[in-house]
Amino acid sequence: MERTYRVVISCPDQVGIVSSVSGFIAGQGGWITEAHQFADAERQQFFMRYEILASSLPYDLEGFKHEFTPIAERFGMHWYVTDSAVPKKVVLMASKQAHCLSDILYRWRSGDLAFDIPCVISNHDDLRSYVEWHGIPYLHLPVDPNNKEPHFQAVREQIAAVDADLVVLARYMQILPPQLCEDYPGRIINIHHSFLPSFVGARPYHQAAERGVKLIGATCHYVTSELDAGPIIEQDVARVNHHNSTADMVRIGKDVEKSVLARGLRYHLEDRVLVYGNKTVVFA
Amino acid sequence: MERTYRVVISCPDQVGIVSSVSGFIAGQGGWITEAHQFADAERQQFFMRYEILASSLPYDLEGFKHEFTPIAERFGMHWYVTDSAVPKKVVLMASKQAHCLSDILYRWRSGDLAFDIPCVISNHDDLRSYVEWHGIPYLHLPVDPNNKEPHFQAVREQIAAVDADLVVLARYMQILPPQLCEDYPGRIINIHHSFLPSFVGARPYHQAAERGVKLIGATCHYVTSELDAGPIIEQDVARVNHHNSTADMVRIGKDVEKSVLARGLRYHLEDRVLVYGNKTVVFA
Amino acid sequence: MERTYRVVISCPDQVGIVSSVSGFIAGQGGWITEAHQFADAERQQFFMRYEILASSLPYDLEGFKHEFTPIAERFGMHWYVTDSAVPKKVVLMASKQAHCLSDILYRWRSGDLAFDIPCVISNHDDLRSYVEWHGIPYLHLPVDPNNKEPHFQAVREQIAAVDADLVVLARYMQILPPQLCEDYPGRIINIHHSFLPSFVGARPYHQAAERGVKLIGATCHYVTSELDAGPIIEQDVARVNHHNSTADMVRIGKDVEKSVLARGLRYHLEDRVLVYGNKTVVFA
Amino acid sequence: MERTYRVVISCPDQVGIVSSVSGFIAGQGGWITEAHQFADAERQQFFMRYEILASSLPYDLEGFKHEFTPIAERFGMHWYVTDSAVPKKVVLMASKQAHCLSDILYRWRSGDLAFDIPCVISNHDDLRSYVEWHGIPYLHLPVDPNNKEPHFQAVREQIAAVDADLVVLARYMQILPPQLCEDYPGRIINIHHSFLPSFVGARPYHQAAERGVKLIGATCHYVTSELDAGPIIEQDVARVNHHNSTADMVRIGKDVEKSVLARGLRYHLEDRVLVYGNKTVVFA
Repeated sequence: MERTYRVVISCPDQVGIVSSVSGFIAGQGGWITEAHQFADAERQQFFMRYEILASSLPYDLEGFKHEFTPIAERFGMHWYVTDSAVPKKVVLMASKQAHCLSDILYRWRSGDLAFDIPCVISNHDDLRSYVEWHGIPYLHLPVDPNNKEPHFQAVREQIAAVDADLVVLARYMQILPPQLCEDYPGRIINIHHSFLPSFVGARPYHQAAERGVKLIGATCHYVTSELDAGPIIEQDVARVNHHNSTADMVRIGKDVEKSVLARGLRYHLEDRVLVYGNKTVVFA
Repeated sequence: MERTYRVVISCPDQVGIVSSVSGFIAGQGGWITEAHQFADAERQQFFMRYEILASSLPYDLEGFKHEFTPIAERFGMHWYVTDSAVPKKVVLMASKQAHCLSDILYRWRSGDLAFDIPCVISNHDDLRSYVEWHGIPYLHLPVDPNNKEPHFQAVREQIAAVDADLVVLARYMQILPPQLCEDYPGRIINIHHSFLPSFVGARPYHQAAERGVKLIGATCHYVTSELDAGPIIEQDVARVNHHNSTADMVRIGKDVEKSVLARGLRYHLEDRVLVYGNKTVVFA
Repeated sequence: MERTYRVVISCPDQVGIVSSVSGFIAGQGGWITEAHQFADAERQQFFMRYEILASSLPYDLEGFKHEFTPIAERFGMHWYVTDSAVPKKVVLMASKQAHCLSDILYRWRSGDLAFDIPCVISNHDDLRSYVEWHGIPYLHLPVDPNNKEPHFQAVREQIAAVDADLVVLARYMQILPPQLCEDYPGRIINIHHSFLPSFVGARPYHQAAERGVKLIGATCHYVTSELDAGPIIEQDVARVNHHNSTADMVRIGKDVEKSVLARGLRYHLEDRVLVYGNKTVVFA
Repeated sequence: MERTYRVVISCPDQVGIVSSVSGFIAGQGGWITEAHQFADAERQQFFMRYEILASSLPYDLEGFKHEFTPIAERFGMHWYVTDSAVPKKVVLMASKQAHCLSDILYRWRSGDLAFDIPCVISNHDDLRSYVEWHGIPYLHLPVDPNNKEPHFQAVREQIAAVDADLVVLARYMQILPPQLCEDYPGRIINIHHSFLPSFVGARPYHQAAERGVKLIGATCHYVTSELDAGPIIEQDVARVNHHNSTADMVRIGKDVEKSVLARGLRYHLEDRVLVYGNKTVVFA
């Protein structure tokens, strides 16, 4: 993969945005390798993502930012630009179940997904050996059920210490405190084991079995202070039938969870997700 | 298709059910063309469906019922047997939208699904010409928004008059009164335009758009006195993205609705659905 | 839906295309409602589709063409622009089976798909009454198995007589002569009842049953002189199992065929399909 | 999971099979936890799989075999019975790519799939450390491209040495010699990275990209002496579009491959797959 800059923009829609942005890039000889744009007619909001060959531009990322700022200001853009060669720092959090964590670690070590893992945090020690085989630091931060605050404080400190760009809750079975969620908007991803908004909260497969649904699902979403209610990045489902016990649903669901989380994570790492209101635009 | 008898059974699970049923059938020379059985370990409940070549048995349906009754009584079975050559009488109900109705009518006139349609009932007159082209009586029973009871009374009388085996709400946009639902348990099928239990009630696509889900769905279920809460027969989903307006979701959803309803209807017509509690076993 | 102009472009990739096109549109005050672009890195080919609010432009379609031509020439574009208010003329061809035809006719009469149907052509008379109920002329052009050429000549003349923009083979069970295919490149759509390139030619469900595949499919493609080998527009599959006889596969497959054809047809009618080589870019 | 015996039967269809089998089991007080049967009307062949609670029977597996033999002989059954408590010995073979191997190893170490792994065989040394972390012996058996026979001889000897019940080609990139395939009928499983019968042989994703298909797939099948032509156990597909390069297809396809192989492996391990002719019945 050649090195690219990814420019991600949202702003009120008006005539001339694409023209100005593409004109600016063309004026510098910039070669666009991938382009997506979307205008939400109802909200009159515009979204775009350009991927530009870094070698085709006459300046580096800081130079790009400096040159582009006047255009951004003219259109009232909320925007950022990232460098595909700079991997994001992603803290992974898990509890005892390893299906999502294992899947992410495979993608990381095979290079299928490009990112750094400063550490894995868990409230249990079970997954230490597996994680450490990868050469990744493993932090066991236990939870005192009668006083969870120290745990979350330690989590918060660790996230800050490694300067994490993203936190992934890879079946981490604790509910983060609202303040922590609010301090990292759009930077904490969770995988919930139901097709949201159905079956919020605990034991969704049991809820699904009780209701007698014919498909079970999983949802990858940004974490907000309201439980399982944040902007959805990706979802998928799998078919079940009467032969499937709740235990079978848990097993079948694992495969959905890990693939949905992997896709959602990819979209985020590649700067393909734009949050607006409680929804997302995903330039997949 | 050769004529078959379909024996559908549910009873408390115990040793010897299959042996007794299959032994009885084999003793008469009965040729089983399709067999399904399922034991719910948790509820200790047993379900089975046998399809037997009619010509292989030495008696007709009444004879079968008479001979089989002692076995049924021994095991405390809830059971019935149907004759594949006797089509069910299905009243179709619709409002203005025709996608589900048209789809069902195609399957009926092509013979893909075998059943009789004594009439189509609608609270609007829009679909009269299309239905009547098929040679099917069309009843326009208007709804007075300030007094809906006469409408439902007329519906009830019509269902009784044609001795309907089944009523299909093919996007009929009125909520049936609870008493009517209770009087026809397991005999009224609805198609709801969401992936239940998400988005119960009115305007589910708008609810889905508001929540930002990445898949929309439809649910075919038996109607009970609680809105959109009856036993689910079939569900499916389709992928949507940010480009899809709510109007697009309505359009995309129509295709899911009609195929889910068609599958659910087939399962019911072929006696493949067994309701227990608020769930279904579908021997598809 | 507000009236739009759809500009569809393909050309060798180079710096400045988007800038020039969007700059031209913005310069006229043009409001872009939908934009897609794609650069094929391997072939260095660029594709784009812009949808522009007609009322935002100071000229009509002919004016647009005139003004845009210099840009098109500068970049060596293969391009066209269409008016969303001008429905395409689509000749439907079928034989005896009506599942695809019925589905398309529903979408037409409900307005879900906007197009005109100058006539339906069939080599059988079976579907006359159904088609004529819609007020659409029905042409029965029989095929002499020993001399098919007169049939195809009549088909050709009819297509020319109504000045068809598109011909849809909605399960028309005759193989068009190569010359006819070549005379309408990208303007004849077929639905093939297999997941191509598997099971080219006759009786694909029988071939599928023989091979023991676990999914059956359908393929919507442009017709070329080589049988079932033209550019693919859309495909989908459905799961089958050992319970499904070949007859079941035919039945299950019908639902896949009609939805795949409907999607492919929509893409074409909305000018979302760009053919290059033997492949398509679909800006869905 | 409680211990069960799994009786798997195929024989010519006739009246009385189910009655005899279920009568025999009921006569011993056997508790059937899961039952599947299927009659292929065309070939007049009957298939069944019963899962019986081991503790409900008055004898062990050998006792069962002895008692059941007369029934099996009467109906000309091809049959076997397995003990769910006896894990199968599965030799895994891979080359350099680890997505399928990693996925299987996760299911093994988490207990999601119950089986033993006497060793992993590879023609490369790349995956040694990962496999050995699991405590599983890793055999690097290099291939001399000019003389592959010694490699295959070593493979054959190793399979025999560990008395393998099953060999899984988890993206092992060598074609097994026909004789080896024939010596282990129904006991070597391969994952092919296309939706067979499309794209047999090498570089199927390149073939798929070339043909412009809209879905890519994977196929889990038993290996026979004819390349990629053995009985299919499981298949699935994933959607691709013009944005996806061949490299993207490879990446997207990996997820399909690993889930299809995992499902196929589960079916085999649980004795749910019955081969007949070149097809399978899968009692999933």
